[in-house]
Amino acid sequence: MVLRGLAKAKNFTLGPTAPLKSFSQNIKTVPDRNKLINISNEKHPLSNTIQNNKLYEYEKKTKRSFDNIVSTLKEIAYIQHNEDFLENAQEISQKNLGIDLPTHILDKSWVKPLDMRGLYAWCVFKQHEKFSDDFFKNDPLCGSSSSTEAKEFEKFLIDCGFHLLDITPCSDGRLAHTVAYVMRIPFSSVRRRSHAGALFDVENTVNRWIKTEHKRYREGLPNLASKDTRYLKIVTYHFSSVDPLHQGCAAHGSNDELAAQEGLNKLLAFKESVENSFCCGASVDLMLIGLDTDTDALKIHLNSKEGEISLEHTISTLDIYNSTINKSEESSEREICNLISKYPSENQLTGMEKFIYKIIKNNISQIDYVKTFHKGSYEDIGHAERFIGVGIGFKEVHLRNLTYFSHLDTVEEGAPDLDVGIKIFSGLNVSEDLPIPVVIRFDYSGKVPGAKERAIKDCDRVNNAISIRYKDLVEQGLLHTCLTIRDRDKTDSAQIISMSLDKKTKEAH
Amino acid sequence: MVLRGLAKAKNFTLGPTAPLKSFSQNIKTVPDRNKLINISNEKHPLSNTIQNNKLYEYEKKTKRSFDNIVSTLKEIAYIQHNEDFLENAQEISQKNLGIDLPTHILDKSWVKPLDMRGLYAWCVFKQHEKFSDDFFKNDPLCGSSSSTEAKEFEKFLIDCGFHLLDITPCSDGRLAHTVAYVMRIPFSSVRRRSHAGALFDVENTVNRWIKTEHKRYREGLPNLASKDTRYLKIVTYHFSSVDPLHQGCAAHGSNDELAAQEGLNKLLAFKESVENSFCCGASVDLMLIGLDTDTDALKIHLNSKEGEISLEHTISTLDIYNSTINKSEESSEREICNLISKYPSENQLTGMEKFIYKIIKNNISQIDYVKTFHKGSYEDIGHAERFIGVGIGFKEVHLRNLTYFSHLDTVEEGAPDLDVGIKIFSGLNVSEDLPIPVVIRFDYSGKVPGAKERAIKDCDRVNNAISIRYKDLVEQGLLHTCLTIRDRDKTDSAQIISMSLDKKTKEAH
Repeated sequence: MVLRGLAKAKNFTLGPTAPLKSFSQNIKTVPDRNKLINISNEKHPLSNTIQNNKLYEYEKKTKRSFDNIVSTLKEIAYIQHNEDFLENAQEISQKNLGIDLPTHILDKSWVKPLDMRGLYAWCVFKQHEKFSDDFFKNDPLCGSSSSTEAKEFEKFLIDCGFHLLDITPCSDGRLAHTVAYVMRIPFSSVRRRSHAGALFDVENTVNRWIKTEHKRYREGLPNLASKDTRYLKIVTYHFSSVDPLHQGCAAHGSNDELAAQEGLNKLLAFKESVENSFCCGASVDLMLIGLDTDTDALKIHLNSKEGEISLEHTISTLDIYNSTINKSEESSEREICNLISKYPSENQLTGMEKFIYKIIKNNISQIDYVKTFHKGSYEDIGHAERFIGVGIGFKEVHLRNLTYFSHLDTVEEGAPDLDVGIKIFSGLNVSEDLPIPVVIRFDYSGKVPGAKERAIKDCDRVNNAISIRYKDLVEQGLLHTCLTIRDRDKTDSAQIISMSLDKKTKEAH
Repeated sequence: MVLRGLAKAKNFTLGPTAPLKSFSQNIKTVPDRNKLINISNEKHPLSNTIQNNKLYEYEKKTKRSFDNIVSTLKEIAYIQHNEDFLENAQEISQKNLGIDLPTHILDKSWVKPLDMRGLYAWCVFKQHEKFSDDFFKNDPLCGSSSSTEAKEFEKFLIDCGFHLLDITPCSDGRLAHTVAYVMRIPFSSVRRRSHAGALFDVENTVNRWIKTEHKRYREGLPNLASKDTRYLKIVTYHFSSVDPLHQGCAAHGSNDELAAQEGLNKLLAFKESVENSFCCGASVDLMLIGLDTDTDALKIHLNSKEGEISLEHTISTLDIYNSTINKSEESSEREICNLISKYPSENQLTGMEKFIYKIIKNNISQIDYVKTFHKGSYEDIGHAERFIGVGIGFKEVHLRNLTYFSHLDTVEEGAPDLDVGIKIFSGLNVSEDLPIPVVIRFDYSGKVPGAKERAIKDCDRVNNAISIRYKDLVEQGLLHTCLTIRDRDKTDSAQIISMSLDKKTKEAH
């Protein structure tokens, strides 16, 4: 709690500009927050203020829709024995949350205390549904495949020499916004696969590589196989500058050196697999990035002299931010270019350097975002997810601490990831007598006959496995599930198949 | 039991030759075995007698190594309280089975009755290991990728217009010899994926299709992507001519029309998936075959006039066999060619017709095989598998009723298949107080870093899931497991990682 207090400390002053140096020097000791960020009202010259405002509106609106649930349900709890309870409860819910509550739960208030746990889970699921609908219908992050942003980014990516961008952040909810916020990449232009500790599945990724290459050979998409471009795989591990020893990556015991090392091992294993399994110079490009979950600043690993990703040779976007905030746009650009290449201007950059410049510039906006809207460092330095997402999909989740993501085909394989999520939510929710809301999702390809039916069966199978593995929680009403599917070949939103809260049909006598 | 008796009846006479007609007319009623097969000592002119003798030697030797276990253990049971028991037991085991028994189990005989269940499972596992070693070292079926047979067959396949042959038989042990015996295809030239009811996984097969195409584009293997050849997917469902209502496919309630229909549905779904998901005229070829598990004769579905696989328009290799056995090689060839094409000789056939001719001819050898060595119809018309194989691999299993195969990544997904296997073995073994021997296998690619370690973890995970799902059996010593892995990029045999019978290391105090 002391450390949470530290995170909330308001006594920021304009500290001295930190020199450009490896960020790892900072995160070993209890940090002096003044050094972490230049706390002023100034914006960085490279920052995109309009985008920042838009992103914040979206974050605020969406999170509020979840965070208003408890106060709304309290209001409803007080009136559960009053006259016209049903109408009044629905009115309050509609006014505060914009959703209807389930009549079959409210109806019981005369005979037993309201099932507040059930109502809480219901509200989370319905808010998730609304948020999902909004995402697929309105493209609030301007990142859908038909957006100008996505088209431009994909062109840029090809210019850099990459025909596919595949990012694995940790499944920790504090990295759920890595793509759309921290790196400012249109979500549809990235393959995202979150895994605990950012430890992605090598075989699965090789399969994706094959699919990507096959599409280039067969359809010339996104470019012809004869073009000299690569598949770029990025691993984003994380650490905490505010509380390095406790709020880093749980999968690596908050040891950020280990997190980096193991991320690099996975990357190298992926590359070696492709090189060993396929002929004709098949290879991939790799990138290792550390994310400070307090400030959203990045630690980008550059290559050693031998051309391999270096664990030591890193640059910190926060250092860059601090060092350039008072400079002009031009000199900021020059300073960054000099840092990552032998050229002084962005136009001269090519390949990976061009890509890194873009990520640095985009991340500077995010550092400004955190500075402007979250006082330079998030108040919720720890976990504060609203629900657990289990399965394959969740293209719509791009907000920090909204979702703990457990990417799995089966609970049998994904149990270690899921157990971590259940543990996190035991602290967040169960300790407050609130249930753990689990949204199960299976995306499917509508082009494949029977795929929809199989996705529904997958949801049921995983739901069943969850109810066996977490039997005690389920029996106490402390874990609720909502089963959803989505046709990935369409732009439609996800569809709720069933919930553990559905009215049970009476059995025939 | 009456029906088993019927299968064993010895009063065969030389029956009249059946006319060429759809086999389905036969299997609806209690069969007249005389009509099923021409019981004489004559061989069919197209039959390969030398190959038959060789295949029988292999079948006999391998099955005997399993079937001698019970009598050997009985012999050992009688002497468990005699002097020099350990040495004598090992001597008997070596003499009869060629294996050593586990000392840590034998050692206990003075303090409690010998764990015969444990010894039985141990022997099955060690015989499996020996048989597996023999297969990969000596290529007894002459079907390894370096064999002349495989090279010739692959050339033949390309000549027919197919660059990959992918067969899904039912996981029923009575179909485990489909490739090497019933169709006489070199095992290394086929992708085999057994599934209960022959209901293969469409998404998984599409992935395999992509890999195959990618290899053609990238490496020109087995031929260039520009060549007009196709991926051929075959479904082999099954039925019983001796006891059609009870010994057909359990997954389809012994309803062979349903088995054919559902197999066809899967094939069409696979084709539609490929056609809908990929451009440029991507497609696949399909084939539907029924297998009579009593005689090993095939029912081959031909195309309707509209060019679609027909459920009604079939030919029976048994009818062909009976109709041509007394003819010359030339006239047999002519009769078959006329039946499946408009040409009178094999040389004139192309494409699918050429392929079907080969399968018919090969299967005629197998009908002769069953006639010569199994009195025209197997004595074990029902299940008589020796162990359950669970996981991914088992390239070495090509004997009828040796293995019930449960092809799965996870018990969570594969439970329906596995439950059927456990039920079968509850009848075969548990009812006789013998344990169910389960061999877990995960093949891996040695070219992929960490793949071996992941295969070991997969074995452990599945073993753990089995011990949870079948807790009661495991606790009573009525289910034992043997964990094995194999590098699919090499020709080495499988490697045993551990067994449920391993000596427990004493815990430190």
